[in-house]
Amino acid sequence: MTANAQRPKVRLFVTEDLAPGAAAVPREEQAHYLTHVMRLPAGAEVALFNGHDGEWRATVEREGKRIRLRAIAPLRPQEPTPDLWLIFAPIKRARIDLVAEKATELGVAVLQPVLTERTDVERVNIDRLAAHAIEAAEQCGRLSVPEVRPPVALGKLFDGWGERRVWVALPGAPPAVQAPPAGAVLIGPEGGFSETEARWLGALPQIVPVGLGPRILRAETAAIAALTMLQARYGDLS
Amino acid sequence: MTANAQRPKVRLFVTEDLAPGAAAVPREEQAHYLTHVMRLPAGAEVALFNGHDGEWRATVEREGKRIRLRAIAPLRPQEPTPDLWLIFAPIKRARIDLVAEKATELGVAVLQPVLTERTDVERVNIDRLAAHAIEAAEQCGRLSVPEVRPPVALGKLFDGWGERRVWVALPGAPPAVQAPPAGAVLIGPEGGFSETEARWLGALPQIVPVGLGPRILRAETAAIAALTMLQARYGDLS
Repeated sequence: MTANAQRPKVRLFVTEDLAPGAAAVPREEQAHYLTHVMRLPAGAEVALFNGHDGEWRATVEREGKRIRLRAIAPLRPQEPTPDLWLIFAPIKRARIDLVAEKATELGVAVLQPVLTERTDVERVNIDRLAAHAIEAAEQCGRLSVPEVRPPVALGKLFDGWGERRVWVALPGAPPAVQAPPAGAVLIGPEGGFSETEARWLGALPQIVPVGLGPRILRAETAAIAALTMLQARYGDLS
Repeated sequence: MTANAQRPKVRLFVTEDLAPGAAAVPREEQAHYLTHVMRLPAGAEVALFNGHDGEWRATVEREGKRIRLRAIAPLRPQEPTPDLWLIFAPIKRARIDLVAEKATELGVAVLQPVLTERTDVERVNIDRLAAHAIEAAEQCGRLSVPEVRPPVALGKLFDGWGERRVWVALPGAPPAVQAPPAGAVLIGPEGGFSETEARWLGALPQIVPVGLGPRILRAETAAIAALTMLQARYGDLS
């Protein structure tokens, strides 16, 4: 939850190759964000990533209303993305957008909608899901964006599938019977604990520091993920 | 994700004691739901729970515009709630509501807002959070509702705390370095897979059945929880 002060605050996903002097054109919503939300002048610095060339420092170039982003120097090398896919039956709009956002923060590589017998949402707006995934990737510090695939019928999902394992909750699996955990999960604000607070917390005897991975999770994702991890390890999630 | 056909579909949290013949008055939003959403006539059956007497079958009684719910017979005995608390800095409205909903589905006993130096949301609508927690408890099959406590300053949080452990993500904890997982998580629709689909899936060699605990998770919660569990066990969440 801490930002590196030397790194540009604004991170943008682009599709162009990144190399010294390479230019990238922001998508419409990115241009709006740069100009009307962040109000970045020409010369301001941003960070760029494209899923394969790592993260690059870049400057904003303006020519009238047009914006270009000029890569200057590398910030971080590309890292491997966990090869984890999420296959999900489409649900209603706000909730499916949330799935795209949270799955991106949790590091998935592929978002695959699947149509089942009881799926009552037939149309999936792939472009909107992809836009949510891009925004979440920009915000959480990932160097890649999940691929959003077109919906597939469940019966065709495994055609030519290979050996990739698929974890799925099926009815009838007995719930784990374990002693309920006693404890508390503490989640800080979006900006993270202050340094004073973090030092103070770290010295308290009841505090158990936990890692939530290399990406920056939004506060609500951190809450859900931390509860899941504890319930899975000590509680009633098997 | 399967409902027991013999059980009433509508579950309501009430504050009255439950025993044979006991009457409970639905809260305003519950009465609206019964009358205008579900359109349940007098004599229809619902399930009631209050956090300590288990779950009860009850009938709807109508007298003009007034509704009463009359407990008939027990459906399930009370179960212990995991003694897990979530302490969280307030965030913006839609996201804090989500935290209350998801934490309830994941089984927490207490929701405790905490004010930190960088918390920029000062007012917390406890009643709205409690209403979300009740609705989530009704929907997910819990027999209890999390207690929503008034906000407390971080510096006072541990006054008289005792030995309860507190898990917290602090800056500087090194991320786990593990081989990225290769696999997929498959999440069905809100209504669950059909029996045919579940049988078919269960027989496929690549399928790994997993349990997601005794409560009914909404599809997006199931997706987030399953990804977290896998990333924690095999991936880059430590």
